[in-house]
Amino acid sequence: MDIAHLGHVEMLTDRFDATLDFFTRVYGLTVSGRDATSAYLRAWDDYEFHTLKLTAAETTGVGHIGYRAASAEALDRRVAAIEASDFVAHGWVDGDQGHGPAFRFEDPFGHLFEIYWETEKYRHGEADRPALKNNASRFHATGACPRRLDHLNLLAQDVTEFRRFMETCLGSRVTELIQLDNGRLGGCWFTVNNKGYDLACTEEHGGGRGRLHHVTYAADQREDILRAADIFLENGVHIETGPHKHAIQNTFFLYVWEPAGNRVEIANAGARLILDPDWEPVVWTEADRKKGQAWGLKTIETFHTHGTPPVPGTGA
Amino acid sequence: MDIAHLGHVEMLTDRFDATLDFFTRVYGLTVSGRDATSAYLRAWDDYEFHTLKLTAAETTGVGHIGYRAASAEALDRRVAAIEASDFVAHGWVDGDQGHGPAFRFEDPFGHLFEIYWETEKYRHGEADRPALKNNASRFHATGACPRRLDHLNLLAQDVTEFRRFMETCLGSRVTELIQLDNGRLGGCWFTVNNKGYDLACTEEHGGGRGRLHHVTYAADQREDILRAADIFLENGVHIETGPHKHAIQNTFFLYVWEPAGNRVEIANAGARLILDPDWEPVVWTEADRKKGQAWGLKTIETFHTHGTPPVPGTGA
Amino acid sequence: MDIAHLGHVEMLTDRFDATLDFFTRVYGLTVSGRDATSAYLRAWDDYEFHTLKLTAAETTGVGHIGYRAASAEALDRRVAAIEASDFVAHGWVDGDQGHGPAFRFEDPFGHLFEIYWETEKYRHGEADRPALKNNASRFHATGACPRRLDHLNLLAQDVTEFRRFMETCLGSRVTELIQLDNGRLGGCWFTVNNKGYDLACTEEHGGGRGRLHHVTYAADQREDILRAADIFLENGVHIETGPHKHAIQNTFFLYVWEPAGNRVEIANAGARLILDPDWEPVVWTEADRKKGQAWGLKTIETFHTHGTPPVPGTGA
Amino acid sequence: MDIAHLGHVEMLTDRFDATLDFFTRVYGLTVSGRDATSAYLRAWDDYEFHTLKLTAAETTGVGHIGYRAASAEALDRRVAAIEASDFVAHGWVDGDQGHGPAFRFEDPFGHLFEIYWETEKYRHGEADRPALKNNASRFHATGACPRRLDHLNLLAQDVTEFRRFMETCLGSRVTELIQLDNGRLGGCWFTVNNKGYDLACTEEHGGGRGRLHHVTYAADQREDILRAADIFLENGVHIETGPHKHAIQNTFFLYVWEPAGNRVEIANAGARLILDPDWEPVVWTEADRKKGQAWGLKTIETFHTHGTPPVPGTGA
Repeated sequence: MDIAHLGHVEMLTDRFDATLDFFTRVYGLTVSGRDATSAYLRAWDDYEFHTLKLTAAETTGVGHIGYRAASAEALDRRVAAIEASDFVAHGWVDGDQGHGPAFRFEDPFGHLFEIYWETEKYRHGEADRPALKNNASRFHATGACPRRLDHLNLLAQDVTEFRRFMETCLGSRVTELIQLDNGRLGGCWFTVNNKGYDLACTEEHGGGRGRLHHVTYAADQREDILRAADIFLENGVHIETGPHKHAIQNTFFLYVWEPAGNRVEIANAGARLILDPDWEPVVWTEADRKKGQAWGLKTIETFHTHGTPPVPGTGA
Repeated sequence: MDIAHLGHVEMLTDRFDATLDFFTRVYGLTVSGRDATSAYLRAWDDYEFHTLKLTAAETTGVGHIGYRAASAEALDRRVAAIEASDFVAHGWVDGDQGHGPAFRFEDPFGHLFEIYWETEKYRHGEADRPALKNNASRFHATGACPRRLDHLNLLAQDVTEFRRFMETCLGSRVTELIQLDNGRLGGCWFTVNNKGYDLACTEEHGGGRGRLHHVTYAADQREDILRAADIFLENGVHIETGPHKHAIQNTFFLYVWEPAGNRVEIANAGARLILDPDWEPVVWTEADRKKGQAWGLKTIETFHTHGTPPVPGTGA
Repeated sequence: MDIAHLGHVEMLTDRFDATLDFFTRVYGLTVSGRDATSAYLRAWDDYEFHTLKLTAAETTGVGHIGYRAASAEALDRRVAAIEASDFVAHGWVDGDQGHGPAFRFEDPFGHLFEIYWETEKYRHGEADRPALKNNASRFHATGACPRRLDHLNLLAQDVTEFRRFMETCLGSRVTELIQLDNGRLGGCWFTVNNKGYDLACTEEHGGGRGRLHHVTYAADQREDILRAADIFLENGVHIETGPHKHAIQNTFFLYVWEPAGNRVEIANAGARLILDPDWEPVVWTEADRKKGQAWGLKTIETFHTHGTPPVPGTGA
Repeated sequence: MDIAHLGHVEMLTDRFDATLDFFTRVYGLTVSGRDATSAYLRAWDDYEFHTLKLTAAETTGVGHIGYRAASAEALDRRVAAIEASDFVAHGWVDGDQGHGPAFRFEDPFGHLFEIYWETEKYRHGEADRPALKNNASRFHATGACPRRLDHLNLLAQDVTEFRRFMETCLGSRVTELIQLDNGRLGGCWFTVNNKGYDLACTEEHGGGRGRLHHVTYAADQREDILRAADIFLENGVHIETGPHKHAIQNTFFLYVWEPAGNRVEIANAGARLILDPDWEPVVWTEADRKKGQAWGLKTIETFHTHGTPPVPGTGA
């Protein structure tokens, strides 16, 4: 695969201080850097400088999504593929805190992507030196304290078209999908490596454009998710749904809304990986979906409608 | 990477019935097939026909190690690389229950490897149909019940040479290693994908040849390892060491000896993956190792000496 | 306290074989004894002969509830207190498999209770000898495999009157309660020892009489509850709600319906105990209850209506 | 029982600031009060003002041990029993921050006890108001963050005599004991309620007097213990042994030394309780003990010798 992994997500917030407080004190990320409008955050074992760029903005949602290439040559191959496609290429940008030149492009639904090779690996200081040298930094045990960035979920009006975008531009493969009775795709789970997914796309029902459904970090154990639920509860964070287990991907999940309204998940996948090189996508029908989540939980209504930024006048 | 993942391990036993009883009733694998001298076993979410081939023999240890290629073309590339090397190539065999033609070759220390592309994916029946269609078969909850094959550990007189073998023949990368004060490698952890390791090699101290240190399956949660400890205890299985956490790879481990003496591990890696495409191997010195395992447990003496088959007259 | 602990619950089933299969193969109890119409079951660390008496009947629900006294003298004191009260005393019965003479009495809502002192402690055989001699029998690891009986929940038209019954007859203390806006008690949690509760009573909304809401066994860890959810899922058991955490008593819960329709819970209370000898009952208002369970789960409708036996023509 | 539960332990330290930092920042207790020489600490769900009194002193060890009576009358009964005995009674003291008048007495090995009835229940403020009103204060998620005080372990030259002291003065019952081949008791586990033990006494091997072996708080889940191990590791705390499972009492344990050298445990007992009112003490022989801990861990040498205060010139 030319693309190695999801690198970072830029999240927009119109309540910057509150959102930053949530992500650091409650969710348990740490700040690597700051600039005039953004904070660069990472989980304790994320190897790069940052995996979440939090940017003050007039609204919420996703700024851009960064994927790291597997090599300089692989990056070139991907750029060529994108340029040869009918998708919108924005071209090279100089990079950012934490990584070098990045090639930017856009899906047909208004989400901005970038791919890059050169990165700044996180260098811990004395204060966050890990006890075990194979960890990127100290397990600081603050807040929910997930280990690493896991995935994000975007909304698109046409998931089939979004799938073509992901396959063409990133070379992603599809591991699971929802096949609606009307013939459309209801959702699609993509990966560029052995994780079950690094990006999911589900159908936009709120009339929005370029919207974010959620961003997720991975915790080591399901118990970490249960403990996180108590931490969110004690800190007045809106718990939307969970902890419970998704039928799709078997993910043990917990969804909350950070103070500005962006949905954030903390999840655990157990030992599940997609090792099979010719894995056939798992197809979930509407009939399957009527069973609810793995253990029968009915999906909460806001999960189908709430995205960021909100769509004026719709409640979505 | 040309090689997708570790596919299966053939384990030899001179107590076939007892070993099979251990692996099915206590450890929690299931039987996919039998022939005159072997049973083919898998964990409930292993996608292939088998991941453990248990073979009746006059002694214990490892029969052969199978890796699945990422494609037919990738298999050809690997075969060419092996044939171009100075390592011993045995050539093609017809395959076995569960997979197609395999190319066999051997490391300088007597371990037999094979690589293959064509495989038989496990097809569950009515009795082991999973409730969730993205699982390979039903979570049967029998015994320790790990999810999938994880890795194996071999012993070699010269780990540096073994490393050259793995890099040359499988294209494996090294994620962590032990650098001894005498300049030799004490151990090396290899992977062909995003797992931290699928094969480890540590120095042979017992004078044996072609020996196995252990085979490991992955459980979803650390709690599964603790629960497995009680299951082993109640079934009279020899617990050698653990549960505890390895400093190397952060693996939460538990080692037992199956009735014939082969060491078997059940382990959990949490959410740890090697996503970085230019990961630098983590180097552990003898000084590092003196600290014991992650939480200070001193490594038990047999862990340094016991391998299979035993070396006559040495107690190893 | 004169009463030491909840001893056993007799559950009625009109699908005896299916219910027994559920409790042994899936839920993980074992059979200590049988007679013409009943099976006597226990969890692996229950110290008495049985904690669940399963009885073939024309309907479902609870047969009787047994509490063990703290001594022979304490039993006499309780019998005197019951006889001196205005509650219905049935008098002495000879006992049953597993215990000696019992004094029977009845709450005003049709639930039959008994108290006894002489008991038959479970004596394991060779096959279920525990590895650790302080366990009552072997941790068999079959099914959900809870450790011990925990509590039951009854339905009553008048919880305040039921509370008077429990305080008068058993000397129970109230640890938590629901105070409805209309002045009635919505629910009451009782204990005779350091557990948070051994019996709960909630308001009957279905028009039934003498009904059971659920019976619960305790598992050692929350992970056991999550694992049980997968076991129930794979075995086609109806999962009603959970896993989630109750606000009341902090219990981590999972509710299922056994094949005949009786609601059964498996739960974990963590390290929570009521050690305070002058504990003041925690009062939950309707406003409190509107927040849902601890992490926000809305209580499923059937939880308010379903009890056993069903009330003809009501769907309850 | 006249005595309700272990109330508090006074621990001495000759490194007050470092010990206090350990208990608050790393172990996860909070400070309720201070005076000239002591800090009063509690776990987040301890219902009393404090459960650990940390006192600056010239050495380490235990200052005194407080048990709360079940009522004012029960306290009087116990005082009468102690005064009628041949054990040393010091008489009434005025009380302390957190509780009222206490009657003090001493075991033959130099440990000071007190019993009291009047207590100050902890009153949370706005900052530590719990989300769930049945918790004593907010789950703050700082450090290892156990739920409540569990037990302590003292050393005595004659465990049989210590047993007589506990039975006579506190009315404790013995749940488990170690019977040495030489006829002496090697250890004895005592309880006044349904917990498996609130105080253990093991034989003094170091020649000390009035020494402490360890103090323990209870965490809700075994996963909390594993997580605590990482927290101790990252904070440079000396981990002596664990996590592992004791054969005796089935406790899942982890032992560390706080900066001044007092041994501190964090433990989980699962759902295990002693509900049986006529429980027979479990007897462990030397042969039993040779098997090591539950899963085979050999007991580390310092566990047999290290106590506080240290014994000059012995290394104990």
